[in-house]
Amino acid sequence: MASIFSRIIAGEIPCHRVYESALVIAFLDIAPLSPGHTLVVPKRECEFLHQLDDASAAALGEALPRVARAVLAATGATAYNILQNNGAAAHQAVPHVHFHIIPKPNPELGLGIGWKPGTLAAPDGTALAERIRASL
Amino acid sequence: MASIFSRIIAGEIPCHRVYESALVIAFLDIAPLSPGHTLVVPKRECEFLHQLDDASAAALGEALPRVARAVLAATGATAYNILQNNGAAAHQAVPHVHFHIIPKPNPELGLGIGWKPGTLAAPDGTALAERIRASL
Repeated sequence: MASIFSRIIAGEIPCHRVYESALVIAFLDIAPLSPGHTLVVPKRECEFLHQLDDASAAALGEALPRVARAVLAATGATAYNILQNNGAAAHQAVPHVHFHIIPKPNPELGLGIGWKPGTLAAPDGTALAERIRASL
Repeated sequence: MASIFSRIIAGEIPCHRVYESALVIAFLDIAPLSPGHTLVVPKRECEFLHQLDDASAAALGEALPRVARAVLAATGATAYNILQNNGAAAHQAVPHVHFHIIPKPNPELGLGIGWKPGTLAAPDGTALAERIRASL
């Protein structure tokens, strides 16, 4: 079954579209965390970012600054977060890759961030980096 | 003064590098939220994403799925968040664009997300989308 975003892209469900290119569409989130909360979505339906093809990924990367500039200009916000979630455990709600652009106009609106950093010991870091490089 | 990431890119400060291309570098975060927490950084020093040139933005977009695949393979995680912060109000700590890849291996580790959605009324959404499109 097509994702809700594929149905939006197909024109079956309306959206407040703000940007469109051959590979990417962007539209307003209907449950915004702040005014201007926008979703940037590859037209190719793909559940997780790590499954995305190179051309779609590059087009998404290029769209993000462009759409962000317009969101800032239209809303007057100056701070914002870009968030992209993969997997229900990581807060993904729609199984079709989407980047959130979330303006942060004040402490009450926008994305809330919980940040509990650990430390990376040198030997562990060296071994982990080696394993990641070997998986590229 | 060069950002700490520009000094890493110049080789003045060591890092646990996991990926490098002409325009992008990726290395382990030294204060990880979970094992495999990685930063993906444009070599061009630029404070905010909306200031980034198209070529760097496309290269970042293309690097994200590739590095994410390797992080998942090396750590065994299946869920993860991509986060990129712009402005101190939005939790940006280093004034040089960076995307976090943050594995979410369990509820205790990884990114914490605070999410208080509002609603988008149709007339407001139409007007806001028009303002954003006009700013593109």
